[in-house]
Amino acid sequence: MPDPSLRLPAIADVRHAAARIAGHAHVTPVLRSATLDALAGCELLFKCENLQRAGAFKFRGACNAVFALEDDAARAGVVTQSSGNHGAAIALACKLRRIPATVVVPEGAPQAKLDAIVAYGARLVRCAPGMAARDAAVAEVLARDGGTLIHPFDNAEVIAGQGTAALELFGHAGTLDVLMTPVGGGGLLSGSALVARAQAQRVEVLGAEPQGARDAHDALEIGHPITDRNAETVCDGLRGHLAQRTYDILKRDVDGILLADDDAVLAAMRLVWTRMKLLVEPSSAVPLACVLANPARFRRRRVGIILSGGNVDPAMAGQWFSSPDSGNSRP
Amino acid sequence: MPDPSLRLPAIADVRHAAARIAGHAHVTPVLRSATLDALAGCELLFKCENLQRAGAFKFRGACNAVFALEDDAARAGVVTQSSGNHGAAIALACKLRRIPATVVVPEGAPQAKLDAIVAYGARLVRCAPGMAARDAAVAEVLARDGGTLIHPFDNAEVIAGQGTAALELFGHAGTLDVLMTPVGGGGLLSGSALVARAQAQRVEVLGAEPQGARDAHDALEIGHPITDRNAETVCDGLRGHLAQRTYDILKRDVDGILLADDDAVLAAMRLVWTRMKLLVEPSSAVPLACVLANPARFRRRRVGIILSGGNVDPAMAGQWFSSPDSGNSRP
Repeated sequence: MPDPSLRLPAIADVRHAAARIAGHAHVTPVLRSATLDALAGCELLFKCENLQRAGAFKFRGACNAVFALEDDAARAGVVTQSSGNHGAAIALACKLRRIPATVVVPEGAPQAKLDAIVAYGARLVRCAPGMAARDAAVAEVLARDGGTLIHPFDNAEVIAGQGTAALELFGHAGTLDVLMTPVGGGGLLSGSALVARAQAQRVEVLGAEPQGARDAHDALEIGHPITDRNAETVCDGLRGHLAQRTYDILKRDVDGILLADDDAVLAAMRLVWTRMKLLVEPSSAVPLACVLANPARFRRRRVGIILSGGNVDPAMAGQWFSSPDSGNSRP
Repeated sequence: MPDPSLRLPAIADVRHAAARIAGHAHVTPVLRSATLDALAGCELLFKCENLQRAGAFKFRGACNAVFALEDDAARAGVVTQSSGNHGAAIALACKLRRIPATVVVPEGAPQAKLDAIVAYGARLVRCAPGMAARDAAVAEVLARDGGTLIHPFDNAEVIAGQGTAALELFGHAGTLDVLMTPVGGGGLLSGSALVARAQAQRVEVLGAEPQGARDAHDALEIGHPITDRNAETVCDGLRGHLAQRTYDILKRDVDGILLADDDAVLAAMRLVWTRMKLLVEPSSAVPLACVLANPARFRRRRVGIILSGGNVDPAMAGQWFSSPDSGNSRP
């Protein structure tokens, strides 16, 4: 039997995912701000995945993929590679299913993220930085210990799980003119696009990507995924490249990808912090930055935005709060 | 006819307030954190008034009092004194009713707070620091320009409005064993206590007050309001004293007031920031600090907490984020 995680997912998979993760994942609030609406000249509806368990939408996909495993496979445990939100999400999902999790992390990953993964009970395996070393470490763990690899975005169950945020957003908001999400590896945008295309009304689906990590934008222009670039952006959640699977969904279902530079992203992030009182990480603010930079395009439209996560490093947050004009400096 | 704002409010006033402010105030979410529950050893339900319009529960009371005015009185405008959340709340409520607002602020009030008041279209009148100078300035404005004074907490319609947060919390949460709010002038705690006492089940109602501004705690012990102390606390929203009206309600309906020092408050605030991804001001974190300091008292109980506001000065937030151990330093 072919591995179902290798299919292109469809709207039915998103609906199954919603049923599967109910009771584990939070139904996050959709929040609005009259101040930001006035500033943007449109209606903004923010789906607050920074308030999701483990602090990001990633828990939806991880939870769906972990709970979709057959019992035999589940008992052998789950392996993944991520120094970021997917690692913590897998660790928490496996804790809830009471199965072992192994997360391969590169040397130099932020200690706070590693602490979160360990706090959820996962085993950490260190490897050298770089994709090749990571892939080798994952292969070694799988060969030695067994278990199922759950990739952060190149996995049908993960993509279907990420789509459940948009499903809840439409359920709450009714119709939208535009749905926007950040795009890194494309899991969230793919899942969201599947949901938007299943709506009765036509919805424009847009990705929002940092200028310094514009591989998805350029991939859709040239006609294939780009995997040989180094990303340069403060948006640590968006440095990944599209996989063929997410590329295929975006190519079919997404209307465009807008770009924003890091200064605009950090300014938008500070607006969310100070006006909405929500702590979001830089990646979450890319859609708002794109809306504010293109007022004519969005004027008077009803725009749904997924705030993807809130796992910001406290030291960086302190710096970004204190010095609005030195926003894009990094440690 | 006696001024209805001078009565002791009752639960019926809170229900009227809820109807009056519907459509103006946000129904804020009630959020939970498995991590904080584990840390506290109890069930914590956070009513997120930091996500309320103008960034604090104060908008509920201000909106109710402003919209309760007869048309003739309303046209003459509203006057209040506050350099903090109540001033911005009155300014926004008057903007929504399209009537003039005047806010008397002491010299030296933070520019960010003044900017918010002006942005909502209110007129600022400066006065010297100190209660006497403020009262004189308010009296002068009322004598010269007319209008209605809406006090930040010594007003029945304001207290009834503040109670609507607890009304929504019980509506969402069902039963609670404990309801806790911060206490400064006592408006929020009074309104919340009225609601708790109207529940079918017995609910313990507790205030949470900074050690450096413990006038409400001590007032309930000695049997009358204390108004001659200077507060020393980072909780800028809780430096006020009880009025006779709020004292009377607290004496009748509140089971006790717990105390927390500023270091514990700031540690609890950082937990809300980093674990719940919610930006709250120090005042909001006093109840959580009290729960964490008294684990045996709350063990396994279902505790509702009102997170009162999110208007934290960005420079201070930067400092508190960056340096957890220099938390209680002030500019």
